[in-house]
Amino acid sequence: MTVVASSSPPVGTIHGVGLGPGAADLLSVRADRLVRGARHVAYFRKAGRPGQARRIVEGMLRADVVELPMEYPVTTEIPLTDPRYNDCLAGFYAECTARLAALAQAGEDVVVLCEGDPFFYGSFMHLHARLSGVVPVAVVPGITGMAGAWNATGVPITWGDDVLTVAMATLPEDELARRIRDTDALVVMKIGRNLPKLRRAVAAAGREEAAWLVEHAAMPGQTVTRLADATSVTPYFSILLIHGRGRRP
Amino acid sequence: MTVVASSSPPVGTIHGVGLGPGAADLLSVRADRLVRGARHVAYFRKAGRPGQARRIVEGMLRADVVELPMEYPVTTEIPLTDPRYNDCLAGFYAECTARLAALAQAGEDVVVLCEGDPFFYGSFMHLHARLSGVVPVAVVPGITGMAGAWNATGVPITWGDDVLTVAMATLPEDELARRIRDTDALVVMKIGRNLPKLRRAVAAAGREEAAWLVEHAAMPGQTVTRLADATSVTPYFSILLIHGRGRRP
Ligand SMILES: C[S@@+](CC[C@H](N)C(=O)[O-])C[C@H]1O[C@@H](n2cnc3c(N)ncnc32)[C@H](O)[C@@H]1O
Ligand SMILES: C[S@@+](CC[C@H](N)C(=O)[O-])C[C@H]1O[C@@H](n2cnc3c(N)ncnc32)[C@H](O)[C@@H]1O
Repeated sequence: MTVVASSSPPVGTIHGVGLGPGAADLLSVRADRLVRGARHVAYFRKAGRPGQARRIVEGMLRADVVELPMEYPVTTEIPLTDPRYNDCLAGFYAECTARLAALAQAGEDVVVLCEGDPFFYGSFMHLHARLSGVVPVAVVPGITGMAGAWNATGVPITWGDDVLTVAMATLPEDELARRIRDTDALVVMKIGRNLPKLRRAVAAAGREEAAWLVEHAAMPGQTVTRLADATSVTPYFSILLIHGRGRRP
Repeated sequence: MTVVASSSPPVGTIHGVGLGPGAADLLSVRADRLVRGARHVAYFRKAGRPGQARRIVEGMLRADVVELPMEYPVTTEIPLTDPRYNDCLAGFYAECTARLAALAQAGEDVVVLCEGDPFFYGSFMHLHARLSGVVPVAVVPGITGMAGAWNATGVPITWGDDVLTVAMATLPEDELARRIRDTDALVVMKIGRNLPKLRRAVAAAGREEAAWLVEHAAMPGQTVTRLADATSVTPYFSILLIHGRGRRP
């Protein structure tokens, strides 16, 4: 008779893995290995949409992969300022955290797919904050969407002593204008429906001629347009850039 | 008798390749392929030093690789404000450009190794500006040193509507203090001998408790220190960070 020691399996790790701006060969070597080797792959998406992070790794996943899409609750009818908006998201993140923690506690590693760099305005940060200290969490940095965007323009973003300001288009118009006036180089993200407001702010700062709009950087259908020539609608994956003009020997 | 058409070889391409913050597996898959396949590899370094970019790819190069170290002229005795400083560097970049252009015109591809992302405060930009329109130039984006640095702290850099300011420690003290006061999240690069000045600026802005110093992010010997506990000397590869504290459902 053999006595088998009963013991729980070692706890698994939740890996937040930066995928870079969109092209499959812009994953880091470390991210590429983790994604290809993963048995459990989780990712955020809007209900009914494939999800951008999932699209980036199309064709890279193991045949026996188990996918965990985490679908954002529909919040379009709740204004951002309504406390119910926050409550709704907080409940959603708590639920995702519970699913991932349960997998780790059962001894499974999970790769969470993150667009760009996970610690730069990323949704994964909300899981990271909740999982830390509960189960092991590891993060793999990635090439940011903004690096994909300035690369797409073919022009360096910052030189010498340039100051770079990164701001979200969700800020109030006058604050955007003030910050655009007060910086050498500029990156604005989360544009979408805020494009008309952002355009007015850039114009108020007198910099419309220097501003570029990059849609879908390093993704299929990438476009680079002068802001002056842009239409009034822009997709979620859009970044506005103003290049710095600092010291150049 | 066979007639062989005499024709010049196709012109080669100069690739500015972002290597990321330091770890070999944080190169992108695209960068990794280019570096491993390259017959000609160029990189900047200080005279008599191995060079950080070259160190990152140690063990990855082809056996028959031809290396082109580009050694910065010694400029320590010329102050940054002296026009001879700029002239000296401009001459150096012109010479590097001529060497690379000659190789491309002879049909050879060259990989230029770049720390972090080539278009983000990089030296390669000075070659890119001179080579563009002369020979084909291609750029591969990379994970920035600052992404390596915030990853090393284990804490996200920006949330929600946070504004991120990236500034160089070479700026005047009062301008640094003003910008530190006026931002949510902060990254300061090019610190070195400017650490005492930077520290005074952070203190003047009342944010010393929130500031972290990351040395050699993603490199051997990486350290993460509270600014308050830092000594007065820091290596070239150092980044100061203040994490944002924006909206978190
Ligand atoms: C929630 S943030 C995530 C940022 C991501 N963690 C990163 O490192 O780039 C989403 C915003 O990032 C920007 N973005 C990210 N990747 C992009 C890409 N490939 N092309 C254009 N915009 C992108 C867009 O402005 C979008 O609204
Ligand atoms: C000339 S800039 C080059 C920046 C580079 N192109 C990038 O994308 O990070 C050099 C400065 O970058 C910062 N830096 C780059 N990589 C770093 C790393 N791995 N650790 C700490 N600092 C780094 C330091 O502040 C250094 O003074």
